Amino acid sequence: GYAKIDYHRHLRKGFPEVIFCQGKTVEQVAEIFKRLSRASDTNIIGTRASEEMFQAVKKHVPGAEYDAMSKMLMRRFSNTAKRGKVCVCSAGTADLPVAEEAALTCELMGNHVERIYDTGVAGIHRLLDQVDKISQANVIIVVAGMEGALPSVVGGLVDKPVIAVPTSVGYGASFHGLAALLGMLNSCASGVTVVNIDNGFGAGYAASLINKLAGDQ
Amino acid sequence: GYAKIDYHRHLRKGFPEVIFCQGKTVEQVAEIFKRLSRASDTNIIGTRASEEMFQAVKKHVPGAEYDAMSKMLMRRFSNTAKRGKVCVCSAGTADLPVAEEAALTCELMGNHVERIYDTGVAGIHRLLDQVDKISQANVIIVVAGMEGALPSVVGGLVDKPVIAVPTSVGYGASFHGLAALLGMLNSCASGVTVVNIDNGFGAGYAASLINKLAGDQ
Amino acid sequence: GYAKIDYHRHLRKGFPEVIFCQGKTVEQVAEIFKRLSRASDTNIIGTRASEEMFQAVKKHVPGAEYDAMSKMLMRRFSNTAKRGKVCVCSAGTADLPVAEEAALTCELMGNHVERIYDTGVAGIHRLLDQVDKISQANVIIVVAGMEGALPSVVGGLVDKPVIAVPTSVGYGASFHGLAALLGMLNSCASGVTVVNIDNGFGAGYAASLINKLAGDQ
Amino acid sequence: GYAKIDYHRHLRKGFPEVIFCQGKTVEQVAEIFKRLSRASDTNIIGTRASEEMFQAVKKHVPGAEYDAMSKMLMRRFSNTAKRGKVCVCSAGTADLPVAEEAALTCELMGNHVERIYDTGVAGIHRLLDQVDKISQANVIIVVAGMEGALPSVVGGLVDKPVIAVPTSVGYGASFHGLAALLGMLNSCASGVTVVNIDNGFGAGYAASLINKLAGDQ
Amino acid sequence: GYAKIDYHRHLRKGFPEVIFCQGKTVEQVAEIFKRLSRASDTNIIGTRASEEMFQAVKKHVPGAEYDAMSKMLMRRFSNTAKRGKVCVCSAGTADLPVAEEAALTCELMGNHVERIYDTGVAGIHRLLDQVDKISQANVIIVVAGMEGALPSVVGGLVDKPVIAVPTSVGYGASFHGLAALLGMLNSCASGVTVVNIDNGFGAGYAASLINKLAGDQ
Amino acid sequence: GYAKIDYHRHLRKGFPEVIFCQGKTVEQVAEIFKRLSRASDTNIIGTRASEEMFQAVKKHVPGAEYDAMSKMLMRRFSNTAKRGKVCVCSAGTADLPVAEEAALTCELMGNHVERIYDTGVAGIHRLLDQVDKISQANVIIVVAGMEGALPSVVGGLVDKPVIAVPTSVGYGASFHGLAALLGMLNSCASGVTVVNIDNGFGAGYAASLINKLAGDQ
Amino acid sequence: GYAKIDYHRHLRKGFPEVIFCQGKTVEQVAEIFKRLSRASDTNIIGTRASEEMFQAVKKHVPGAEYDAMSKMLMRRFSNTAKRGKVCVCSAGTADLPVAEEAALTCELMGNHVERIYDTGVAGIHRLLDQVDKISQANVIIVVAGMEGALPSVVGGLVDKPVIAVPTSVGYGASFHGLAALLGMLNSCASGVTVVNIDNGFGAGYAASLINKLAGDQ
Amino acid sequence: GYAKIDYHRHLRKGFPEVIFCQGKTVEQVAEIFKRLSRASDTNIIGTRASEEMFQAVKKHVPGAEYDAMSKMLMRRFSNTAKRGKVCVCSAGTADLPVAEEAALTCELMGNHVERIYDTGVAGIHRLLDQVDKISQANVIIVVAGMEGALPSVVGGLVDKPVIAVPTSVGYGASFHGLAALLGMLNSCASGVTVVNIDNGFGAGYAASLINKLAGDQ
Ligand SMILES: Nc1ncnc2c1ncn2[C@@H]1O[C@H](COP(=O)(O)O)[C@@H](O)[C@H]1O
Ligand SMILES: Nc1ncnc2c1ncn2[C@@H]1O[C@H](COP(=O)(O)O)[C@@H](O)[C@H]1O
Ligand SMILES: Nc1ncnc2c1ncn2[C@@H]1O[C@H](COP(=O)(O)O)[C@@H](O)[C@H]1O
Ligand SMILES: Nc1ncnc2c1ncn2[C@@H]1O[C@H](COP(=O)(O)O)[C@@H](O)[C@H]1O
Ligand SMILES: [Mg+2]
Ligand SMILES: [Mg+2]
Ligand SMILES: [Mg+2]
Ligand SMILES: [Mg+2]
Ligand SMILES: [Mg+2]
Ligand SMILES: [Mg+2]
Ligand SMILES: [Mg+2]
Ligand SMILES: [Mg+2]
Repeated sequence: GYAKIDYHRHLRKGFPEVIFCQGKTVEQVAEIFKRLSRASDTNIIGTRASEEMFQAVKKHVPGAEYDAMSKMLMRRFSNTAKRGKVCVCSAGTADLPVAEEAALTCELMGNHVERIYDTGVAGIHRLLDQVDKISQANVIIVVAGMEGALPSVVGGLVDKPVIAVPTSVGYGASFHGLAALLGMLNSCASGVTVVNIDNGFGAGYAASLINKLAGDQ
Repeated sequence: GYAKIDYHRHLRKGFPEVIFCQGKTVEQVAEIFKRLSRASDTNIIGTRASEEMFQAVKKHVPGAEYDAMSKMLMRRFSNTAKRGKVCVCSAGTADLPVAEEAALTCELMGNHVERIYDTGVAGIHRLLDQVDKISQANVIIVVAGMEGALPSVVGGLVDKPVIAVPTSVGYGASFHGLAALLGMLNSCASGVTVVNIDNGFGAGYAASLINKLAGDQ
Repeated sequence: GYAKIDYHRHLRKGFPEVIFCQGKTVEQVAEIFKRLSRASDTNIIGTRASEEMFQAVKKHVPGAEYDAMSKMLMRRFSNTAKRGKVCVCSAGTADLPVAEEAALTCELMGNHVERIYDTGVAGIHRLLDQVDKISQANVIIVVAGMEGALPSVVGGLVDKPVIAVPTSVGYGASFHGLAALLGMLNSCASGVTVVNIDNGFGAGYAASLINKLAGDQ
Repeated sequence: GYAKIDYHRHLRKGFPEVIFCQGKTVEQVAEIFKRLSRASDTNIIGTRASEEMFQAVKKHVPGAEYDAMSKMLMRRFSNTAKRGKVCVCSAGTADLPVAEEAALTCELMGNHVERIYDTGVAGIHRLLDQVDKISQANVIIVVAGMEGALPSVVGGLVDKPVIAVPTSVGYGASFHGLAALLGMLNSCASGVTVVNIDNGFGAGYAASLINKLAGDQ
Repeated sequence: GYAKIDYHRHLRKGFPEVIFCQGKTVEQVAEIFKRLSRASDTNIIGTRASEEMFQAVKKHVPGAEYDAMSKMLMRRFSNTAKRGKVCVCSAGTADLPVAEEAALTCELMGNHVERIYDTGVAGIHRLLDQVDKISQANVIIVVAGMEGALPSVVGGLVDKPVIAVPTSVGYGASFHGLAALLGMLNSCASGVTVVNIDNGFGAGYAASLINKLAGDQ
Repeated sequence: GYAKIDYHRHLRKGFPEVIFCQGKTVEQVAEIFKRLSRASDTNIIGTRASEEMFQAVKKHVPGAEYDAMSKMLMRRFSNTAKRGKVCVCSAGTADLPVAEEAALTCELMGNHVERIYDTGVAGIHRLLDQVDKISQANVIIVVAGMEGALPSVVGGLVDKPVIAVPTSVGYGASFHGLAALLGMLNSCASGVTVVNIDNGFGAGYAASLINKLAGDQ
Repeated sequence: GYAKIDYHRHLRKGFPEVIFCQGKTVEQVAEIFKRLSRASDTNIIGTRASEEMFQAVKKHVPGAEYDAMSKMLMRRFSNTAKRGKVCVCSAGTADLPVAEEAALTCELMGNHVERIYDTGVAGIHRLLDQVDKISQANVIIVVAGMEGALPSVVGGLVDKPVIAVPTSVGYGASFHGLAALLGMLNSCASGVTVVNIDNGFGAGYAASLINKLAGDQ
Repeated sequence: GYAKIDYHRHLRKGFPEVIFCQGKTVEQVAEIFKRLSRASDTNIIGTRASEEMFQAVKKHVPGAEYDAMSKMLMRRFSNTAKRGKVCVCSAGTADLPVAEEAALTCELMGNHVERIYDTGVAGIHRLLDQVDKISQANVIIVVAGMEGALPSVVGGLVDKPVIAVPTSVGYGASFHGLAALLGMLNSCASGVTVVNIDNGFGAGYAASLINKLAGDQ
């Protein structure tokens, strides 16, 4: 009844359907995870899952894992092939859950990930120190809240596609991430594209599709 | 005084600084174009230029060209290397200026471009007829106004990165492209990233960086 | 004192006043439900009711029923006449409460209902598989959150009125359903009209008025 | 190239594709109108057309007509079948262009139309005097700007579907029709659905699909 | 230190300072209420007070009263002079707390109050039945949520000033009262002025100043 | 056809219908003005009229007058009865057109008007110098753009109803009067009510209804 | 790895990095506070800290202090040098937490602070009484919610820089501080600059940098 | 009547009233300029003036000057005292008019000005090259449109107060400067305060008040 799982997606998109757990009941998540895990032998991802959902899933899928910071629910196979590097930069400590959602998504989809955290623009030297490392990636995901200025600076320094992820970190006129979102959409640096507020998963998925173009290493 | 041209950008980003002509005087555009054309022997791009700016530029840079639909000002060398294919889809006839800004940017940056225009979601068969052609591209740029639904449908059909460009086409509650922008940011299809409203140039630039990863053909 | 029940409404509108329970106290809901149930012998509907309201109502109106998913409180008579079909489509599992509010409203107002759930646009073939079934309805209610693209696609495939219901499902730049609402209002498909965010009841009521025009079967 | 006319639409939707002229060049409109007029022998509609577009179309399609108030461009055949009545109510004189767009669309799609204009809620007796006439229609289109209250009052008086059209008439905090749009979406009367600001055409099209359900007269 | 009570206000404005309790601590409210009650022998008003604040105040000011529906905290003297009539109309049951805040404010400031509740525009006859009673007041306060259409209808029927109070009652595109607020500001009826969302107190205070102009009865 | 003049309004509201000229054609305004002038022998008001409309009206109604600053079109009889005083304060020179619309409306409706202009809060002594004069009015209209702070200061100094009129004067984050509107709705002074942005007419009309309560002088 | 403390900041900015505790875990705050306290012998500030964070910090840094009203976490050395005066004015009692965040920040950064609280514009004499005291400061911080009018009045009275802090105090159309923010940005008084809603810390920091320019006393 | 010039302002604020010319008629500007020039022997400033206003002013005040880029109208005395340095940085060429409004205001108020233009964050090295020069100023004004990221970067590099000026430069989701405004209000760098969009004058005035604290040089 309630869920028409898109089993066909693996063929079309190269990765099985991902479960957006927020807004679903614990029972629905457990049921969908179980059906996906039976239908495929690939990695499986559930985003924005609660600890309670994880407990319900584990009963049916013993190998399931849960990362509390990013709220990701996973079935992970060790033999995942590894492609070139995706770099995930983040501005502040409070942006970590979103950055980790992006990083884990990339790892589960078969990419090497380089994490460069807490490099906000108010202390620009912390970022400049890392330019060489950032430049070695094929794609860069930049996660930032508040004024969302980091992607512009990164985008001006490298010749690789940058995926900007605004976060809802901030208060007052940040309007739950709107300020960062608008900042990123108006970035004066070329090569920057944007995903929804707090959408670490979306950034990770798009980065994986891009990195795949660079071929296996 | 007024313009510090970033000559260094070609080294850092693989492409010289692009002139955003809107908000500049005719004299400023002519001067910057002239200086860029002397400093480099690559293609040069000016976006959102007027016919009048083109006339002023032509005096200094005889080979300059102008495309009235996309309002692009260009110096184009024929020996531009060609990489794999970028596909530019657009929803309606009124979206053409933005779609062409994206397509020309891609061509000037050395990419093959496939244009698939007027395939709005209200007649979905027109899109389904083209899925094979779309699938052959490395990156797909999808340009749409009004409700901005096209990138979600395209994103669900292919396993390549999709760059969505909302346009200001529409009226009333489209709020000058806001409806399309929000629709694209909330796309339920994975692999979709978004640029600013009417920012065909930004989409073309990002697509070029991505396509470059796939290597030369 | 506090509630002037519009008993006359049944004559004017063909259906008694419906109780919008949200924002009322448990006592107020119980009292109004009791008075309506005495004044008429038709089906009665209370929307956005809590379990606790149901318990209070049941004491006065023993035959009352409650549907926890849609939060609807009902007195339902079995001899309800049946008219032609209304189809309720929904995009994702999290949209079910709103879709069920619409479907139950239609049933209580005497319509056959066909439910087609979980057919989001990111896997368009799931929708195309159902086009024949959808086409047999007199009216189609389409419930969707996030980018709200489903009504445009459905509206392009059928020649029947489509009532679009945006839901508050989503996060970030969905702004509690605003993105879906704007998307639906700007639909490029003809024949689509829109109700308030999460207003399954309103869609069901309007669909019933429309379906009544097609006559009894 | 630029326009893939959806000739198939007549089969799917019972009416050929309609031309949204705003944002198209005069040449594009003339060309599309000509191609549609050759491909079908039904009525043809172009909305938001300029006088200049009409002049260009007339050269190719001599029987074309233009209504300056609603900015509609038409080819109209006299033998159009007539169905039951659609009523178009409007609140103020400044709402007339939108009301006429709705009324003409209905007429071109084969419906009888009753116009009831200038009946704003600030003089409610003007509306109450017309209730009998309004009640005879199968569908009522209600056009209003400023606070957009008229559909709620009409919707409370009749047992037929009401399609509300907010207009951009007003100033200050009307925010180009946003106040009326929000008012209509929040209507406390049941049976009201809403279309985009100033979208008389969309209301007329949906009303026609609904009226068709009531059968021919 | 923290509160500079404006004792002088009674002289300037004819009524002592009113305590806006929301956002203050229980201790602050109790202290300010105590000081005001010592400094004057008039009625005292605290708005948006909690039950807990009432308990704290009662210890210092034994005659204090509390109305749970409107959340008003009061010291009321029986010998309050009575002026002509203020009428308070409200649209739905959920608007009662705001309507009562307005009505009690008027009573505490020495006005006769006529309450006419639950007369939403979707059943307009309920309002028309009361026009005579409404017309006898010097000022009319109209409280409504959702689309906020009631003040326009009332304003068109009477020749007295109307104070419109939007409430946050509603959901979805009501945006916490914004729809009602905008509707009221754009009222096509003359003589309507507006106060903040849910500001029953402000409406009551302004109505009292107006009613005072009509003189004592 | 297009305009149902509400002749009855004079009885209900004590003043004939007012013509809102914006959005009407020159012919429509002339026709309505002519019909109103024949049907009544009271003052007549047309707001937001152009010079061209005035010329057209003058042909039919020779005594018509026009005030270019406030864009008001009037037929004025000298024998207008005079009631107590309304005071119109304004903040800056650019607010004058709106202030004059309010002041002229009051005069045409039979009130004495005291104008106190250019007393913005940044030079508060200019306002304090006038407090005595302001206090003699029965109602005070306060017109201000930018941050709209003036009504709060005035409202704190007098014990009369204050009607605040936000203007669209300002730039940037004034958002065409939104900043002033929100400021006035949130006024911490009691007794302040608000009308739409730039709605001098509405303020004048409401002030007249209030002043009428104070009786003739 | 999660936090790259910017130890270098003391050199660049004259004050060590400040910890924004909101959105960090208790463990993260304790760890960063500990590391900062070891690396420097200056005052240390954590803003928006919870009582629980304070308890965790105290275990590592015994001299740490906590102010519950402003939610500030501090290590304070007595030998802080004192510069000229910063004045902190606030409008209402509910604004105190933000005002105290500003005042404490100034004190910890070595400034004399004069607090002038509860001087809202609705009782303007309370402010005028304090003008002399305010004029003696080098910088004035003005904290206000609701309509945010206080900075304009203060800014018109003194010839010193004014830093305006909007607070989220209010309800309805205050939209969590937006009304106050817009009011302050549109201030008609010269010399007023603005910080984010509720950003007492930011105002205090900027005031300290400005006051430092006036030199030591 | 229409303008109460605040001659007293020079005493209170140390600088005469400044004329905001936008929204005033040519005659009003000329008259006010003339009266101010007679009443004082200081520099005089009119902002947002047109060429036409300048011509009218010159007739009365022969020494008046006009700067077409910043639209400033001035009477300038050569003997202006010079204080320490204010630095004005701007991001792009299109921001020049606003930057010049700030710079000229500073010069007219007796400050040395250092202009550093076209140093957008997408080419960060252009900014880093200038850090020494920027650090010598007492105050830094940073002017930027689009995403408004420049003040955060500058604010992180210096220990002086930074005044950020968002400009309306940009398109689409820049929403006429809103994106830059929100970005600056949410700056993660400390010491940044913000003025209204395009308010170069306001920034210059505040910078002058701050610079005055540093004393004469
Ligand atoms: N249409 C466009 N939209 C967004 N960015 C652009 C556009 N055209 C050029 N740019 C970028 O804007 C920068 C030029 O800004 P400016 O220095 O003002 O000419 C360049 O670095 C380009 O990458
Ligand atoms: N979920 C809902 N959304 C919108 N309107 C509703 C809903 N449920 C009931 N209503 C309408 O609200 C009115 C009842 O309001 P009330 O008098 O407050 O109970 C009824 O006339 C219904 O038509
Ligand atoms: N400037 C104005 N702002 C708001 N309402 C107005 C204005 N001028 C006239 N009105 C009202 O608008 C109605 C006229 O609308 P209409 O029938 O379109 O002329 C009258 O009843 C007036 O009360
Ligand atoms: N209440 C506050 N509002 C704005 N910025 C703050 C606040 N408290 C600290 N900060 C800044 O935020 C930065 C710390 O961010 P983080 O690295 O996440 O701790 C510091 O550089 C502070 O200048
Ligand atoms: Mg940090
Ligand atoms: Mg088309
Ligand atoms: Mg699904
Ligand atoms: Mg009318
Ligand atoms: Mg009711
Ligand atoms: Mg002035
Ligand atoms: Mg107080
Ligand atoms: Mg540049």
